[in-house]
Amino acid sequence: MLQLDPTVGDLEQNCHRIANLAKQAEEAGAVLGVSTELAVCGYPPRDLLMEHDFVERSMKAALSVPTNLPVLVGTPIPAEDDRMLPTNGVVRAGPPSTSITGDEHSRIVAEKQLLPTYDVFDEARYFSPKNRSGLARSVGGLTLGVTVCEDAWQSAGLTPSAYAQDPIEHIAGWCRQGVAIDATVNLSASPFHTEKFTTRLAVARHAASVLNHPFLLANQVGGNDDLLFDGRSLVAWPDGRAVIAPSWHEGVLMVDLADPDSCAWVSSTEGDALSIGSTDLMVLEAGDDGSALVDTIEELTNAVVSGLADYCRKSSIHSIVLGLSGGIDSAVAACVAAAAIGASKVTGLAMPSRHSSQHSIDDAVHTAEALGLEHRLHEIDAMHASVETVIGDVLSNGHPVAGENLQSRLRAIVVMGYANANGSMAITTGNKSEIAQGYCTLYGDMAGGYAPLGDVYKMDVYAMADFFNQRAKAEGLPAPVSDSTMTKPPSAELAPDQTDQDTLPPYDLLDDVLRSHIEGGLNADDLVAEGFDEPVVMDVLQRLERNEHKRWQMPPAPRVSRRAFGQGWRRPLASNHDWRRPG
Amino acid sequence: MLQLDPTVGDLEQNCHRIANLAKQAEEAGAVLGVSTELAVCGYPPRDLLMEHDFVERSMKAALSVPTNLPVLVGTPIPAEDDRMLPTNGVVRAGPPSTSITGDEHSRIVAEKQLLPTYDVFDEARYFSPKNRSGLARSVGGLTLGVTVCEDAWQSAGLTPSAYAQDPIEHIAGWCRQGVAIDATVNLSASPFHTEKFTTRLAVARHAASVLNHPFLLANQVGGNDDLLFDGRSLVAWPDGRAVIAPSWHEGVLMVDLADPDSCAWVSSTEGDALSIGSTDLMVLEAGDDGSALVDTIEELTNAVVSGLADYCRKSSIHSIVLGLSGGIDSAVAACVAAAAIGASKVTGLAMPSRHSSQHSIDDAVHTAEALGLEHRLHEIDAMHASVETVIGDVLSNGHPVAGENLQSRLRAIVVMGYANANGSMAITTGNKSEIAQGYCTLYGDMAGGYAPLGDVYKMDVYAMADFFNQRAKAEGLPAPVSDSTMTKPPSAELAPDQTDQDTLPPYDLLDDVLRSHIEGGLNADDLVAEGFDEPVVMDVLQRLERNEHKRWQMPPAPRVSRRAFGQGWRRPLASNHDWRRPG
Repeated sequence: MLQLDPTVGDLEQNCHRIANLAKQAEEAGAVLGVSTELAVCGYPPRDLLMEHDFVERSMKAALSVPTNLPVLVGTPIPAEDDRMLPTNGVVRAGPPSTSITGDEHSRIVAEKQLLPTYDVFDEARYFSPKNRSGLARSVGGLTLGVTVCEDAWQSAGLTPSAYAQDPIEHIAGWCRQGVAIDATVNLSASPFHTEKFTTRLAVARHAASVLNHPFLLANQVGGNDDLLFDGRSLVAWPDGRAVIAPSWHEGVLMVDLADPDSCAWVSSTEGDALSIGSTDLMVLEAGDDGSALVDTIEELTNAVVSGLADYCRKSSIHSIVLGLSGGIDSAVAACVAAAAIGASKVTGLAMPSRHSSQHSIDDAVHTAEALGLEHRLHEIDAMHASVETVIGDVLSNGHPVAGENLQSRLRAIVVMGYANANGSMAITTGNKSEIAQGYCTLYGDMAGGYAPLGDVYKMDVYAMADFFNQRAKAEGLPAPVSDSTMTKPPSAELAPDQTDQDTLPPYDLLDDVLRSHIEGGLNADDLVAEGFDEPVVMDVLQRLERNEHKRWQMPPAPRVSRRAFGQGWRRPLASNHDWRRPG
Repeated sequence: MLQLDPTVGDLEQNCHRIANLAKQAEEAGAVLGVSTELAVCGYPPRDLLMEHDFVERSMKAALSVPTNLPVLVGTPIPAEDDRMLPTNGVVRAGPPSTSITGDEHSRIVAEKQLLPTYDVFDEARYFSPKNRSGLARSVGGLTLGVTVCEDAWQSAGLTPSAYAQDPIEHIAGWCRQGVAIDATVNLSASPFHTEKFTTRLAVARHAASVLNHPFLLANQVGGNDDLLFDGRSLVAWPDGRAVIAPSWHEGVLMVDLADPDSCAWVSSTEGDALSIGSTDLMVLEAGDDGSALVDTIEELTNAVVSGLADYCRKSSIHSIVLGLSGGIDSAVAACVAAAAIGASKVTGLAMPSRHSSQHSIDDAVHTAEALGLEHRLHEIDAMHASVETVIGDVLSNGHPVAGENLQSRLRAIVVMGYANANGSMAITTGNKSEIAQGYCTLYGDMAGGYAPLGDVYKMDVYAMADFFNQRAKAEGLPAPVSDSTMTKPPSAELAPDQTDQDTLPPYDLLDDVLRSHIEGGLNADDLVAEGFDEPVVMDVLQRLERNEHKRWQMPPAPRVSRRAFGQGWRRPLASNHDWRRPG
C-alpha cells in the first residue's frame, strides 16, 4: 500500500513519488504496489478535471510511471467521447505481464462505481460512474478485486444517501460463483477528521467480512489546502484482525496477506516527505477499534501541523510571520508554525496597543523565546493616534466596534508589511469558536494566507497548548505557553478591561453549543431540548448566522472536524437576514 | 410567466411575491401562472437543500401559496426515504380543480430530469433526477407539458456533456402518439452573462419547433450574491416567432398563445421590486435573434447595477462607502452605487497619498459632485509616515511592493472605519483585468463586501463610463466621469510617476488575452497560434496563476461574463507553482 502525499496538478512530481515508493516497496520484497485514489494528479483536482487535456496527460503519466514493480495507479481516465465525463479509475503501471497486451485500454483495471457528491466531495460534477467492479488477474501473481474509495462504503451503510449499487457485494457475488480472489484492494483519498479513523476501520472490517478475504486500503496522506488526509492505510481480515499504518507519514505499508505480525512500515526516503508523529503500526485483534491507542489531542495537533507543513512545501513558502498577542491562540499558532517549518523560519511580532497589559507583552516574549523564534516588538499606539487624527470624528460618532477594529487592522498592516517585504506568509491565529461568532476582524486578525486553528474549537486550543508544553518538558525544553497565558481570562484587548466573556458565553459552553449545531446538525429547538439555555442558544446561533460574510473571506484552515467552514459548508446565498454587514 | 426575484432561503417573502404576481396576472386576465425554478426557496439554495427540514418547509410553503389563480410553483420535493435526495420539482398551488384530489402527492406536476452539474451548477449534489416528463392536464383549462430549466437544453445540444434522456423529445413523442398538448412550459433559473440571451432564445425556438406547439419559459430575475439572472422570460412559437420580456424587472409576461402581438408586460407593484432599464417587450419574427435590439454595454451596466441593488436589498444594507481615487474604476463604481441605491446613500472618500497628483483629487471631487454623493477628503500621508516610523527598516530592506501595499491598506482602514462606524457596506472598485493579474492589494483595495466591477474587463469599464456620461448628458445632468479620468494613463499612484503599463500590457491587449483564455479556454499554445506575442502571453498567464490566492479572498462580484472568478471557476488546490504568496 503506497501511502502517497501527492500535490494537486503536479503530474511530474506525483509520478516521481509513486515510482520512488514503488522502488522502496520492491526492495522490501513486495510483489505488487497499490497507489492512492487519483494519485497521479492528487486529490481533489476539482475543475482541472474539466480540461480534457489535463485528463489525457494524467492518464498518459499514470501509464508511464517508471517502475519494475507492477503498480495499480489511480488516475482519471478520459471518456471515449468529448461530450462524456471521464471516469475515476485505476490503471496498471510497470513491466508487461502475460495477461497484459500493452494496449492502453487493456491496462485499465477498474473504474469507480460510487461517486460521493456531498460534504467536501463533488465527484458527480467531474466523473461518470461505472456499473461494473474491477478485477485484476495475475497482477503480481494475485487475483484482486479492485475498488476505489467510496465503492467500499455502501456495503457498510455509512454514506449519507443510498446508492443503487454495491461494489463489495458485487465482488462477493463473484467469489460465491467460484472466482478465486486473493484479496480486494481499495485506492482511497479519504479525508481526515478526528472521528474518521474508527469509521474507516469499520468499513474495512465490514468489507473483509462480506468478501471473506483480506481487504486492503491505501489512503492518501498530507494536506492539500484545507483538506487533510491522515494516511492510516490498512488491511483487515475476515476474522476482524487489522493492521493500520501510521498517520501523517508518507511511506509504504508492507502487507503479508497471511500474517498480520509480518506486516511492516517503510517510511519514504524522499527528503521532503511528510513525517510527523510516531511510525508505529497498529496491530489490532478483532473487536479492538484502536481508539485507545490514539490520543485525540496529539492526533489533532499532528493534523494541524501537517496541514501547515504541506501547505508551505507545496506552495514554496519558506517563512512565516504572525502576530503574538500573549494570548492562547497566537501562542499555539506559533507552536504549530515552529513545528511545521522550523522555529528559525518563523517571526513573531508583539504589537501592543494602549489597551494591552504588560503581562501580554511578557507572555508573547515568553512564547517566542521558548520556541526560539525571531521576535520583534512594535508599539502601535502612534499609528493608532495618527489614524484617529484623520477619522476621529467618524469613529467617535459611530459604532464602538469601528474603533476596536482599527487596532486589529493596524496590526495586520505591520504583519503584512513584514510578509510582503520578505516574501513570507502571514498566518492568522483565530480559532473556530471565535470565527464562528464573528469575534474577529476582517482585514485585521483575519488577514493571512492560512488559518492553522480555523477549524479548532477554543477548548481544544487550550488542550493543544498543554500538549505542546508537555512535549517540550519531556524533551527538556522550556514550555512555550506560559502559565499566565493558560490561566488568564481570554481578551481581545481592544478596549479597556475587555474580556471575551463580555460578549460571548464561557468557551466550554460555547464550544458545546457550536459543536452540537455544526457537527451534530441540531437546530435551536433541538439544542433547547438537549438542555441548553434558550437565550444562550439564540444568541450563539444568531451571531453564527450574522457573521457568515466574514467566513467567506477567511483563508484556508486545515479541516479537523466533521464539518468545517469553507468547502464542506456551502454557503447559502443572500437571505432576509442582515448578516452581510462587513465588520 | 411570473418573472420572480426570490431571496434564497426566505420562504415567507418568496411566497408573498409569488402570490402578489399571481394576483396581478389574474387581474390582467391570466388563466394560469407559471413561476420560476425553485421559486419558493430561491435559486440556488445550495447546502440548505441538505437539511431535510428546509426541503419539507419549502414544499409545504409552495403548496400553500395563497392564490385564486392556479400557479405552477417551483419547489424542492422531499424524497420518500431519508437516504434519498429530493427532486427539483413543480407543484400546483391555488384552488382545487376537478382533476386535483387535494392530496399533496397528486399536486406534484413535474420533477426535473436533467440536473446540470458544471460551471455554477451543482444539482447532482442536491437532487435525484426523474426519468419521466411532467404533464399537467386541465390546469387553467389547458394541457401542458412541464419542464424545468436544463430539461430543454439537451434537445438543442447546448449542454457541455450529453445526457442519456431528452425531455423535449419525450413530450414530442406523446404528441405524436395523439396526446393533445396546448403548450410546454419551462420553469427556469438561467443565469446571465452578456452572451446568454441569444442562446436561451435559440433553445426555446428549437423546443417549440420540435414540439410543434408554443414553448414558454419563466426565468428568475435579479441577483443572489455573485449570480445574476436577467429575467427575459419568453415564449417561442413553432414558426420561429418569439416574444421576450424585459430584463432586470420583476413582473408578469402575459402570453396569448395565439397572438404574439397580444402579449403584454405587467411590472410588479411591490415597492421594492427590481426595476432597472426599459420595460419594452421584444416581439421577434423568425430569424431575428433580437441582438440588434440590445446594447451590450447598456445591458452589462444594468446587470451590474441590478446585482448591487439586489445584494443591498436582500442583505439589509442601506448605505455604501467607497474610495474615490480619481481613476476610472472608482468613478464607475461610484456611478454603479448611486444607480443601485441612490446617490444620497453613497459616501465617496478621496484619500490622496504623497504620490497622488492634484488632478486625481480634482477628478474624484468631480465625480462625487456630479453624482451628488456625500464626499470627504482625508490625506493619508501622516498615517503613512507614522507606519514607516514603526516598520520603516523592514520596508526599506524588502520588496518594494510592501511599501506600495501600505498605502492601499491605510485607505482600507479609513474606508472600513466609515463602514463599521456607520453600518455601511464598503465596496471595492477593482476590475476583472487587474484582479486577474493580481494588480491589487489584499486587505487594501480588495477590502469590502461586494466588488461591482470584479467581473468587468478594463476596456468595458471605460465603455460603462461613457454610457453613464451619455445618459447623464441626455438627462441634462453633468457627466460623472471627467474627461481627464477618461483619457489619462491609468495609475495606481502607489509610487512616483507609476502607471499600470509599467507592469501590465496595454489594457486592450491584456483584455483580449484574458478573454480568450478565461472565456474561450485557449491555453498558451493556442494563444500564440492565434497571433498573440509569446512573451506577453506567458507573462499574462503566469501572473494570472501566481495571483490566484488573491481571488480566493475577493468579495462577491456580479457575474456578467461566461466565466467569472469564484463559484464558476473552482480553484484547484496547492500545486507546484508558488502563486500562494500573499501580497
